Amino acid sequence: MSHDHALEEDLTLTPKFDANGLVTAVVTDVANGDVLMVAHMNDEALRKTIETGDAWYYSRSRKALWRKGESSGKTQRVAEMRMDCDQDAIWIRVEQIGGAACHTGRRSCFYRAITKGDDGAAKVAFVDAEKVFDPAAVYK
Amino acid sequence: MSHDHALEEDLTLTPKFDANGLVTAVVTDVANGDVLMVAHMNDEALRKTIETGDAWYYSRSRKALWRKGESSGKTQRVAEMRMDCDQDAIWIRVEQIGGAACHTGRRSCFYRAITKGDDGAAKVAFVDAEKVFDPAAVYK
Repeated sequence: MSHDHALEEDLTLTPKFDANGLVTAVVTDVANGDVLMVAHMNDEALRKTIETGDAWYYSRSRKALWRKGESSGKTQRVAEMRMDCDQDAIWIRVEQIGGAACHTGRRSCFYRAITKGDDGAAKVAFVDAEKVFDPAAVYK
Repeated sequence: MSHDHALEEDLTLTPKFDANGLVTAVVTDVANGDVLMVAHMNDEALRKTIETGDAWYYSRSRKALWRKGESSGKTQRVAEMRMDCDQDAIWIRVEQIGGAACHTGRRSCFYRAITKGDDGAAKVAFVDAEKVFDPAAVYK
């Protein structure tokens, strides 16, 4: 395996942005450790998140910088940020304002479990899929 | 925002692989909820993980399917798998065999915290960065 020792052991922030200028952001709930969502950050989103303590991302579909919760009010206060060994992923522990991170109205975007069915094929089931808010009422 | 209601509400596994045929895998430690690593899965890695209960990934640098721990012995037993709303990310809760997921020898790949320094710029510090194993002894 080829690894970059400097990237791994340095105490400088030198994010390895991909071809689209993005790193992966994994967002967990500081209250219980659950993964709330996976998003992306460009250089500006990362900088604004560090500066303000609110989570900013870059929307690949809308091609725009985006403060989480700017339309829904479900903002995220950053409790801790960490970067990974090769500096292409960021782990953000947040206080999720309004109790729901997912645009579908759920607490977490990960509301479906994958298991192996009796026939050996993948089986999907809702877990923790209750809606905290009504998306139709929140996103006008 | 444009969202795909079927993708979000269906109980079928229809992963939205990216241009390289990959989805993002976020791996957390079932023992304490910490994020251990971020990796990628192609269709075969996902299928083998569901079938075997061991974590398989696709290495972008080596362009190869890879059973986590196949060279280090630090395999991952899957406790739970979940998919996200738009089916381009998978959350995997694992029992980390050997107590370390990172190739640098640490428990987690996220062993550096990012904070805002007194001068307003980003500051990086080691956290939970103790090495559980010596990479030089494990990867020959």
